[in-house]
Amino acid sequence: MLTYIAGSGAMGCRFGAQLAQSNQKVVLLDNWDEHIQKIQKDGLKVTGTIEKEMNLSIMRPSEATDPADYIILFTKAMQLPKMLEDIQQIINEDTKVVCLLNGLGHEEVIRQYVPEHSIIMGVTVWTASLPGPGHVHLAGTGEINLQSLLPSGEEAGRVITEMLNKAGLNATYESDVLSAIWRKACVNGTMNSNCAVLDCTVGELFASSNGKEIIDSIIDEFVEIAELEGISLDDQEMKDYVYQTAVKAADHYPSMHQDLIQNNRLTEIDYLNGYVARKAQEYEVETPYCEYITKMVHLKESLLVKDN
Amino acid sequence: MLTYIAGSGAMGCRFGAQLAQSNQKVVLLDNWDEHIQKIQKDGLKVTGTIEKEMNLSIMRPSEATDPADYIILFTKAMQLPKMLEDIQQIINEDTKVVCLLNGLGHEEVIRQYVPEHSIIMGVTVWTASLPGPGHVHLAGTGEINLQSLLPSGEEAGRVITEMLNKAGLNATYESDVLSAIWRKACVNGTMNSNCAVLDCTVGELFASSNGKEIIDSIIDEFVEIAELEGISLDDQEMKDYVYQTAVKAADHYPSMHQDLIQNNRLTEIDYLNGYVARKAQEYEVETPYCEYITKMVHLKESLLVKDN
Repeated sequence: MLTYIAGSGAMGCRFGAQLAQSNQKVVLLDNWDEHIQKIQKDGLKVTGTIEKEMNLSIMRPSEATDPADYIILFTKAMQLPKMLEDIQQIINEDTKVVCLLNGLGHEEVIRQYVPEHSIIMGVTVWTASLPGPGHVHLAGTGEINLQSLLPSGEEAGRVITEMLNKAGLNATYESDVLSAIWRKACVNGTMNSNCAVLDCTVGELFASSNGKEIIDSIIDEFVEIAELEGISLDDQEMKDYVYQTAVKAADHYPSMHQDLIQNNRLTEIDYLNGYVARKAQEYEVETPYCEYITKMVHLKESLLVKDN
Repeated sequence: MLTYIAGSGAMGCRFGAQLAQSNQKVVLLDNWDEHIQKIQKDGLKVTGTIEKEMNLSIMRPSEATDPADYIILFTKAMQLPKMLEDIQQIINEDTKVVCLLNGLGHEEVIRQYVPEHSIIMGVTVWTASLPGPGHVHLAGTGEINLQSLLPSGEEAGRVITEMLNKAGLNATYESDVLSAIWRKACVNGTMNSNCAVLDCTVGELFASSNGKEIIDSIIDEFVEIAELEGISLDDQEMKDYVYQTAVKAADHYPSMHQDLIQNNRLTEIDYLNGYVARKAQEYEVETPYCEYITKMVHLKESLLVKDN
């Protein structure tokens, strides 16, 4: 069985390394030249909870030719359509595609390239970092929640869950994975976007009464739109979850701050608050906080990101 | 006739200097020790369109004893109540009080300290800067719009208008000064608050389609609340005016950016967007953009302003 990791940044390398170590046949796909060349020359350097040089296959998406049994999607949200276009030649009727991207609405994109019964949606709280090209650093622990988009895909979903568990990735086959995806997106949609625009840590945001009022308004908007999408989130439980997560992340600048403020890169805002604001327009309801912060993040992108 | 300038920062010094030059008896009031000592020792240094060392009287508000004929209020918005308390001893039945502060709602504060028929509301587009204590720099030109709060105060308002005109300050007695005050506040409420939070120039804000959408939403909210307050602003005309003003100010960081980001000082947000959001609550309507940006500015204050 051949598994491709489509998007082999920090998280893709973690999954690739752990699957390879459990004797799965894995090919990494990525577009970062330096990263590809380093891994082709010296193998993938893994440090942290695993310390190892691993001989892993890596290539550009368009260079892949062997048909895929499994594809695990791990691109940045805005790179997803391009990736799916570039790997059309390895997707056939039996290929199962697992989406582990951050954010909302990816199933709408994947459906355009992959038969619906072959799509498995997921969410993970594993983390990883890339100290440099060809080097992934692993710390902490995590889990994965998975569910096939259609009931007819359940068997395939359970097979993949087992494969991920053999690789030590703590996967669970879920009855309601879209709720889990919305819960994670709501956490990101509160702290990521605001910490990026306000240039502050999670702890600084949540220490302020004004920050808490902002957070609560954004959670209300996520819960309202989730409900309209048929996904029931309990507003108070969601708030409790976000506040608990914030305590653990207090000292951190979230990933959107790292992308936008520290590294001047485009953000995933359109798949978090921007998705909620777009859906609100479709449903003709108001989500002004999500709308405003989305515009602010895009404005900061236009100021900070070169060749935007 | 004795005129006090209550709040002698850059603008107070400009008005004090020009009134003194036209042979008005003027006393500056301020709380900045270094500034007071410098002017008491060496006089006020005026540079720019007027170049002169002027021998002007300056003291702390609580030290003033001679009854005032006129008081021109020029404090920062949040310092107004304290100033009015500190100068109670120089206000009598004949004292006329002219408010030239930025922002909205100051008449509600002044009414608590001064009889309503003695209050003259105004707005000015003159500018000035303080390169250092005891030194005011004058550039450009400007004008003042004035109107007494009650019709019975009109005569006094016209006398003051004449006095300001003798000092070359281009004053006009208005039939609807509150509209003029709201117009200026709306300009400040769009560009000041957003440029402060987004750390950008006026030109950068207005060059962005996201920036323009934000501006338009905030103007809509100002116009809606002004209407409820009995002040009719034409929405399209207001937008034209804000956009024209933005072109002239394109290269500038507005004053709230200077206060908050450059000098880590408290802002006047509660008298701009914050005032609109507060009034909206009273009227039970929604002004989410004004509400959100007010919270963001206060959050930045809590991060940046020491001894807040």
